[in-house]
Amino acid sequence: MTIGAGTTLRTLREQKPLVHQITNYVVMNETANATLALGALPVMAHAQEEVEEMARLASALVLNIGTLSEHWVEAMLLAGGTASARGVPVVLDPVGAGATEYRTATARRILDVVGVTVLRGNPGEVATLVGAEAEVRGVESIGAGMEPAELAREAARRLGVVASVTGPVDHVSDGERVLAVSNGHELLATVTGTGCASSALTGCFLAAKPDAPLEAAAEALAAFGVAAEDAAAKAGGPGTFHALLYDALYALDPDTLDGRVRIEEL
Amino acid sequence: MTIGAGTTLRTLREQKPLVHQITNYVVMNETANATLALGALPVMAHAQEEVEEMARLASALVLNIGTLSEHWVEAMLLAGGTASARGVPVVLDPVGAGATEYRTATARRILDVVGVTVLRGNPGEVATLVGAEAEVRGVESIGAGMEPAELAREAARRLGVVASVTGPVDHVSDGERVLAVSNGHELLATVTGTGCASSALTGCFLAAKPDAPLEAAAEALAAFGVAAEDAAAKAGGPGTFHALLYDALYALDPDTLDGRVRIEEL
Amino acid sequence: MTIGAGTTLRTLREQKPLVHQITNYVVMNETANATLALGALPVMAHAQEEVEEMARLASALVLNIGTLSEHWVEAMLLAGGTASARGVPVVLDPVGAGATEYRTATARRILDVVGVTVLRGNPGEVATLVGAEAEVRGVESIGAGMEPAELAREAARRLGVVASVTGPVDHVSDGERVLAVSNGHELLATVTGTGCASSALTGCFLAAKPDAPLEAAAEALAAFGVAAEDAAAKAGGPGTFHALLYDALYALDPDTLDGRVRIEEL
Repeated sequence: MTIGAGTTLRTLREQKPLVHQITNYVVMNETANATLALGALPVMAHAQEEVEEMARLASALVLNIGTLSEHWVEAMLLAGGTASARGVPVVLDPVGAGATEYRTATARRILDVVGVTVLRGNPGEVATLVGAEAEVRGVESIGAGMEPAELAREAARRLGVVASVTGPVDHVSDGERVLAVSNGHELLATVTGTGCASSALTGCFLAAKPDAPLEAAAEALAAFGVAAEDAAAKAGGPGTFHALLYDALYALDPDTLDGRVRIEEL
Repeated sequence: MTIGAGTTLRTLREQKPLVHQITNYVVMNETANATLALGALPVMAHAQEEVEEMARLASALVLNIGTLSEHWVEAMLLAGGTASARGVPVVLDPVGAGATEYRTATARRILDVVGVTVLRGNPGEVATLVGAEAEVRGVESIGAGMEPAELAREAARRLGVVASVTGPVDHVSDGERVLAVSNGHELLATVTGTGCASSALTGCFLAAKPDAPLEAAAEALAAFGVAAEDAAAKAGGPGTFHALLYDALYALDPDTLDGRVRIEEL
Repeated sequence: MTIGAGTTLRTLREQKPLVHQITNYVVMNETANATLALGALPVMAHAQEEVEEMARLASALVLNIGTLSEHWVEAMLLAGGTASARGVPVVLDPVGAGATEYRTATARRILDVVGVTVLRGNPGEVATLVGAEAEVRGVESIGAGMEPAELAREAARRLGVVASVTGPVDHVSDGERVLAVSNGHELLATVTGTGCASSALTGCFLAAKPDAPLEAAAEALAAFGVAAEDAAAKAGGPGTFHALLYDALYALDPDTLDGRVRIEEL
């Protein structure tokens, strides 16, 4: 399977896949808007009464533990079980794993029970989940002991997922290959929920390219990074950058995207 | 009662009515900001301990089931009962009715128990609630079998509400008359929560014109549509459109609004 | 301890303190982004399973009852107890106290149980909590019977806090001294959550200057007010003002801030 972010984006905009997201309160509006701006359809639903039914309608499921509590965790397990059983791709964003025991345990529990396709996190979160040494402050990752390419490969192997470790350069691995994505902009770190948005867009790309999760995950980060570069070129700071980011996602052009994507196989 | 969006807006800005909203997590910030920008006062409160008390303070109540769960449904029924008993107008936004059984059943339950004044939804949601054939994907309506003017009239008759069915052209009916509103802009569909915002603004207009819900509902959609037209004229995409939409709501001028409103009685 | 907003901001940006916020659904994204734009690290966590652990990691705790319910109140008490026991500064934003009995009682309960450092509210909310006459509509304060400087002093004395009463001019008091802050802009009142953001930024400044809560609270309001002045100079209305406010917070310059701050001791 080759890398072709433009082709995947074109497919996505034709299919308008429904992407079911059970995510945190802080970023729901933002991940829904990023999904819409890209060209997919978001749906947020977390009631145990309906998550399995909603997950059956969706082409991808995104689970994000950013403001978790017990009812929400149960809903994630229910929805994740349904999606896994149907072969629908599942993204897990383990926000804050390593910061508290509850978050670490919940992320591990989801990884155990649900067939997670892509684990998208920062180095500290992913290192925590592979048992490596990590320093996490709140939901921000300050550093981790392992090189990110190695961390992505190890996480993929040990956890049986495609690991997508984001940072100044992103590293995505299926346990064998490692793709490095160097699109992006430092203003992304000044707006809350851009990591969560990258997880949501990973879900969108997986919905359009379900048979190649390694490539889809890298393409999603590259496309988001290209949009961030475009937004940053016009922005005066975090607030205008945030607004311009949706303009840029909406304006992404499938015909020119591949020429701007910087994905390198290590 | 005549249509006069400018007069209603002027009244609203003088009275600054309190509009109690029990809405979904995704759009709370957006509907609160739309309410404020228009000139009314939003309040979000969902605890069963306080919703009846809050509903007694308010001049309109907006119920939105976009991210429902059982505690929230109970709160909606309590608040709705209080508002109905006091003759305070209630707007119901049945987000995602038709997508899952839980949402459909909840919307029906609220319609049964609460004296809903205006039902504001997309064609698929409203068609679901009148038992017509509908196709709903997540919370987006793809299509419905009935013409929207007919759908609005049928919904109003069968459900005993003013039905406000939004789309490229909006149709509002009390079961007899049908008003078609053709203000708006396609960028509205690229930002999550603009439907929910139109429900919130419907609540604001009802608070200022409680004796004419048909006209108030149409005027609210027209005013929102005019603001969208103004925002779109300056926007570079969904993100800047979203920010400019609040500027435009704030800048709506009661003196010139009626000249721009496109409401036609069918 | 002298007033020096520039020095406190410089310290904050060097230390990047973690500020734990248990706040309302409406403004979570906004207060997180304001915290990030200023230069601190926000974390939102409300599960009873983890709030004590998260509070132990944080340099300040912000409690906001804007959309409270029982689980959240319990979490606030747990987190607040941990913070108090460790000497970590706690900000309480009693959103809507006076509007419903539940909000008033909850704010009083937190004040009783938690060692609140700074109470940040509008005149109606604070007046309610000192038992004075107040008029509150929803979460907006319309007026209160006492002069705000006197109200701040009385609240500080009776409640054993630094009272930070915001309005066209803000008044901050420790029960003896009263500082009046006259930075700000009227567009702040057109965007929901700007009061909540001022509470979050109060938490940030307390984290950087924990030994001088009176000065830190006044400096936070002044810095936020300066940012609002800068944002308003470029804004076309509430929506663009909102986006530009984060740009302005991010651009605040520690070297020039003190020259712009308008804090007067009464």
